Amino acid sequence: MLANSAFHTRKNLAAGITLAAGMTAAMLVLNPLAAYAADHPNLVISAADVDAMQGAIKQPGRFRNAFLATQSAVDRALQAPLAIPMPADAGGGYTHEQHKKNYQLMYNAGVLYQITQDPKYAERVRDMLLAYAELYPTLPLHPKRRPGANNPGKLFWQSLNEAVWLVYTIQAYDLILPSLTDAEAKKIEQGAIRPVARFLSIDSPKTFNKVHNHGTWLTAGVGMAGYVLDEPEWVEQALLDLDKSGKGGFLRQLSTLFSPDGYYNEGPYYQRYALMPFVTFAKAIENNEPERGIFEYRDGIVMKAIDTTIQLSYDNLFFPINDAIKSKGIDTSELVLGVTIAYGQSGDPQLLDIAAKQDQILLSGDGLKVANALDAGQEQPYTFKSFAFRDGKDGDEGALVVLRQQTDGDQALVFKPAAQGMGHGHFDKLTWQFYDRGEEIVTDYGAARFLNVEAKNGGRYLAENESWAKQTVAHNTVVVDETSHFDNNLKVANQNHPDLLFFHADDQVKISAAEINSAYPGVRLKRTLALVNSPENGKTFAIDVFDVASSQEHQLDLPLHYNGQLVDTSFRLQGFTDNLKALGTNNGYQHLWLKARGKPESGLAQVTWLNDNGRFYTQSSLMDGATELLFTELGANDPNFNLRSEKGFIARRDGVSSHTFVSVLEPHGQYNPSKEFTLEAESQVNALDHQRVGDLELITIGTKDGATQLLAYHRSKGIAADTRHTFKFGDSEYSFTGRAKLFQFNN
Amino acid sequence: MLANSAFHTRKNLAAGITLAAGMTAAMLVLNPLAAYAADHPNLVISAADVDAMQGAIKQPGRFRNAFLATQSAVDRALQAPLAIPMPADAGGGYTHEQHKKNYQLMYNAGVLYQITQDPKYAERVRDMLLAYAELYPTLPLHPKRRPGANNPGKLFWQSLNEAVWLVYTIQAYDLILPSLTDAEAKKIEQGAIRPVARFLSIDSPKTFNKVHNHGTWLTAGVGMAGYVLDEPEWVEQALLDLDKSGKGGFLRQLSTLFSPDGYYNEGPYYQRYALMPFVTFAKAIENNEPERGIFEYRDGIVMKAIDTTIQLSYDNLFFPINDAIKSKGIDTSELVLGVTIAYGQSGDPQLLDIAAKQDQILLSGDGLKVANALDAGQEQPYTFKSFAFRDGKDGDEGALVVLRQQTDGDQALVFKPAAQGMGHGHFDKLTWQFYDRGEEIVTDYGAARFLNVEAKNGGRYLAENESWAKQTVAHNTVVVDETSHFDNNLKVANQNHPDLLFFHADDQVKISAAEINSAYPGVRLKRTLALVNSPENGKTFAIDVFDVASSQEHQLDLPLHYNGQLVDTSFRLQGFTDNLKALGTNNGYQHLWLKARGKPESGLAQVTWLNDNGRFYTQSSLMDGATELLFTELGANDPNFNLRSEKGFIARRDGVSSHTFVSVLEPHGQYNPSKEFTLEAESQVNALDHQRVGDLELITIGTKDGATQLLAYHRSKGIAADTRHTFKFGDSEYSFTGRAKLFQFNN
Repeated sequence: MLANSAFHTRKNLAAGITLAAGMTAAMLVLNPLAAYAADHPNLVISAADVDAMQGAIKQPGRFRNAFLATQSAVDRALQAPLAIPMPADAGGGYTHEQHKKNYQLMYNAGVLYQITQDPKYAERVRDMLLAYAELYPTLPLHPKRRPGANNPGKLFWQSLNEAVWLVYTIQAYDLILPSLTDAEAKKIEQGAIRPVARFLSIDSPKTFNKVHNHGTWLTAGVGMAGYVLDEPEWVEQALLDLDKSGKGGFLRQLSTLFSPDGYYNEGPYYQRYALMPFVTFAKAIENNEPERGIFEYRDGIVMKAIDTTIQLSYDNLFFPINDAIKSKGIDTSELVLGVTIAYGQSGDPQLLDIAAKQDQILLSGDGLKVANALDAGQEQPYTFKSFAFRDGKDGDEGALVVLRQQTDGDQALVFKPAAQGMGHGHFDKLTWQFYDRGEEIVTDYGAARFLNVEAKNGGRYLAENESWAKQTVAHNTVVVDETSHFDNNLKVANQNHPDLLFFHADDQVKISAAEINSAYPGVRLKRTLALVNSPENGKTFAIDVFDVASSQEHQLDLPLHYNGQLVDTSFRLQGFTDNLKALGTNNGYQHLWLKARGKPESGLAQVTWLNDNGRFYTQSSLMDGATELLFTELGANDPNFNLRSEKGFIARRDGVSSHTFVSVLEPHGQYNPSKEFTLEAESQVNALDHQRVGDLELITIGTKDGATQLLAYHRSKGIAADTRHTFKFGDSEYSFTGRAKLFQFNN
Repeated sequence: MLANSAFHTRKNLAAGITLAAGMTAAMLVLNPLAAYAADHPNLVISAADVDAMQGAIKQPGRFRNAFLATQSAVDRALQAPLAIPMPADAGGGYTHEQHKKNYQLMYNAGVLYQITQDPKYAERVRDMLLAYAELYPTLPLHPKRRPGANNPGKLFWQSLNEAVWLVYTIQAYDLILPSLTDAEAKKIEQGAIRPVARFLSIDSPKTFNKVHNHGTWLTAGVGMAGYVLDEPEWVEQALLDLDKSGKGGFLRQLSTLFSPDGYYNEGPYYQRYALMPFVTFAKAIENNEPERGIFEYRDGIVMKAIDTTIQLSYDNLFFPINDAIKSKGIDTSELVLGVTIAYGQSGDPQLLDIAAKQDQILLSGDGLKVANALDAGQEQPYTFKSFAFRDGKDGDEGALVVLRQQTDGDQALVFKPAAQGMGHGHFDKLTWQFYDRGEEIVTDYGAARFLNVEAKNGGRYLAENESWAKQTVAHNTVVVDETSHFDNNLKVANQNHPDLLFFHADDQVKISAAEINSAYPGVRLKRTLALVNSPENGKTFAIDVFDVASSQEHQLDLPLHYNGQLVDTSFRLQGFTDNLKALGTNNGYQHLWLKARGKPESGLAQVTWLNDNGRFYTQSSLMDGATELLFTELGANDPNFNLRSEKGFIARRDGVSSHTFVSVLEPHGQYNPSKEFTLEAESQVNALDHQRVGDLELITIGTKDGATQLLAYHRSKGIAADTRHTFKFGDSEYSFTGRAKLFQFNN
């Protein structure tokens, strides 16, 4: 190992040092510690980027606008005096927020220094870094660290924030390094950079080596510091674990934290957060050691992870599965960076469509490419696809399935036979959501949290996140005996996962099925969800077939949480009109007010609601005469008004060992009180049937216009795409090839 | 009277017949039955308009776009066969909707005929009119008429719709008249126009003569038919009552239904609806008899009514006082017509700002003017003003007061010491609403109605409109002894009204006060509301001082209905967490779930909520230690899920004969989970005081930064604007001139 090789020469800004003799791009990760060189800066922003940016700000356009906006904000911030307070507060408190502001300002001022060469920007960064170099060596562990936890920080209460500080600060240092005297550089490195890097690596081995998002931040910070301070050993450790075994480190994280489809198993809300250190460090690696081919690593996993984050959104907002704050979307700073760097790598014009929606231009070489391409109108519509995003590092731990169609508005059905997703995961195996015309129709509560609102549990996750949001009944999936999946045991949940049985998408039918046997002892849950559209009359339906099988009798609840105002039910409701009680006492049931109940007769039961998007939605269910429907509103046992008053209804079948819930969700009509018209407020469905014929399942939906839609699908896990299936229906025989087909009859 | 004078000569399209000798414009309404002439068409659209429109569609721009869109829609509609069904259904039913579609299609086709001269458009109108001429004479009263009511129709269940049919149809007839043979014209007039006009006038004397919006539609239809059919007597009757006494008729309606400020006493929701026949008929009068000066009538009341309708909106939606569907706003077809015609009259470029928001160009001469002006970018920002819109025909029956300021976002405070507003009025004297940053913060429920949704009481007003929406407790005003104002007696309510005591607006202070002694026997209610902003620190407050005085002891409830999620209270809440009961049994209380209660100590009590606009709102109230705060959610005794789950809290003081509720509403901070920051989630108010010093009232608001805002105002009804008031506060003496002043001290 070439532990002492010089990566590059500080201040040698103009020098173009070529690759050391014998190095080739093919050496890649197998031979990482090679000699190569770069000017400063050379992390996310390279010296060549700087040249281009200096030219670009002279031309009108998005890049110049972004530059002027940043310059104006930084100039304002420079008017405030330096503030490097003694660490005292936890997240949200003054010292915490001030140190955050400091690293953001240092980064932006560093960029402005490079672009403008105005020394005032470099001087402020220098002064702040010198102050940190004075302060840091004096710091004990942070007073607000979590007692007993192995992730304390010094500037911040946890090392995660300290690592974020380093990721920004090392870039700021890299950007102003050419302006420093040797003495200044030495003092900053000795007093701040090296101690922080040491604290986050060999002094925090557990977190540094952890294959977890926190570990990614630590390795990214330390690895980038290694490039800047000419410490290849740090880079090695960052990539391969402190002992360079490859058991931990950045490459291991890339291999493990994302599935082969780029899905991060905590879900999109945390995926966009996790992206930040991955794309930042990857870009720095690419600039310093292109021969590692980091963007090609694991079949392009960094690029896949960025794209999958985009795919897991609807109308600019992320699907709020697991702990997620529902207003987070594709315009978050992490994904702006991700899209910018991905565009810099791929030049894919569809990414520009997303960049246009983000409407934020970064001051970097890739940011300039995005700005120029948008100025030139080169964007092409981004394609949101129907896809089963496999979960698990090997892609065999279930999947997050997205079914989409644009035939009647813009619909998305999210089906979640994904793995638990660690501590932020919810006990919601096989749940689903439905989106239509810009709105969430069948909903997921997301996280119970008011981010940074002090009065709401200090802005942290609320107690109701455990007692409600994570519970099974808070989702749209079967609850057995009023107990949540895995009996709320996270460890067991993390060890198990559903199996994806199949996924299929053609023009008329998008369909997927999955099952899990471990959510409840002795109970098999199997669900098939389909999104279909009729080419003949344009109607769309979401079809749900949920099989529960057990050897023992249970109470089965299948909730549906909806967004809108209840319009009608096809059956009599008994309302609890002047006295409400909680539906249960535990596992989330204690938070539900029981507002009404009804026991429809055998046949079709319909519930219609009206969403704010002006569209009606009717869920038509096949009833056996023994299933009750319970209408609920969230908010019981919530003394601090922490929960939103959301609505739902629960199909409850008690005392059965096996049961199949069959239902169809139908968007219809339009309510336009502004223009004073209402169209088709009533469901068109007047019949629903489910039959099993051999290995085929047949769902028929009759509508009032006399038409019948028949969805036929094969239920087995592995079938050949060219297998031909034949079945008899009514007096005729039908056949289709492959997984599924939608037939239409007009009577 | 010149009953036989020829208004104009049919088919004499090119002839320009001048005013009869001796006619002058000054003769106006005093000498209405004069000889004058016009080509066809000459109602809302004149022959000169047609010439201009024919030229305009050859040029690119908004007008041509609107023309092409209408042409495309009409061409599509022409593909359907003629359908003139035998009347059978009430509103929403097939025959009702078909006859509505017919008159809309006839009108549009007539316009297209004039613009394009394509005979296919005229032929469809002719065929429909000939079919109506066959059908109408055979019709009995409508089978779905309301039994015993004196307003039945024949084509429709009520004569109102029949009049709307005539208003559209007479315009369509006027537009295609040049294309008809004499025989066709005769048949249409004899079989349809004359019988309908007769049915709506001398056969419906009560409705025709009624000074009410229904009467306006009837007189507009009959009067316009008089112009087209050369029947000046019809015009006279339409303007002046069937007996031409002036006791009824269009001019009387203009004199009575609007206040001198152009306020229509049912409120803006019905005002925009009422506008339609007023502006349509007024424009037709102006085109046929400009010498009447109809747009100057009563100091320009038609123009004022249009402008006031715009003023009574926030963020494009009307203030939802009284029976109002909350999604109705300035883009309704009636106000599009109003703004278009008003712009044609005044050329006011501020109206173009509204027209741009409406984004609908009418195919008329005035529509062309709007389109051209918008194409030329001539719009200027419309000025929304702080104003007391006086109620009552003489302007002495209270007022609807709007206080606005743009210093910190866009705020509007609506204060309602208006008269009852007849059958659609709510028992909500002195209620208020508050808007900020695009959202309704302190809310009004509006009407309980799902327009045209059959499953919701046939789309009509719901029972909950009476039992909840109209009740006092559904509003933000004092309820005495859980009984609504006027004990829900509409007749008594219509006979009484609050008195506006004062209204004042300067840069820092907008303030108004009103009182009413008749809402409850022996109880005086007096409220002062102010919207203030500090020029020194930019803070804004809405200040509320509500005095209740009686000789007897009562229970006083002051509800505040808010829009958002409760964040915090400064006092302990006792939550009803696993069992909810309705708050009361009647007058709206039966619909409120009591979710929590608290009895704050004497001093300051604060309630903070978070609105979807990302802003926090804190209501700080002055407490006496004996006042309870009851936290409610709407939805009890609502077996059909007809009500929205809205939130509120009620300040309840029992057993007092006099009491003053003092509170301050403070918008603050920002919640931005997307960008992950939260600013100033806590109220800055830490002190509140109210003193009376002689005739002055002093409200002091202390904030955590050490500043004190002092609002001083004079409480008496009539004071001279230059009166100087002096008062002592603390150790100093202060003075101001006029109604009110905001002082700021920095400690």
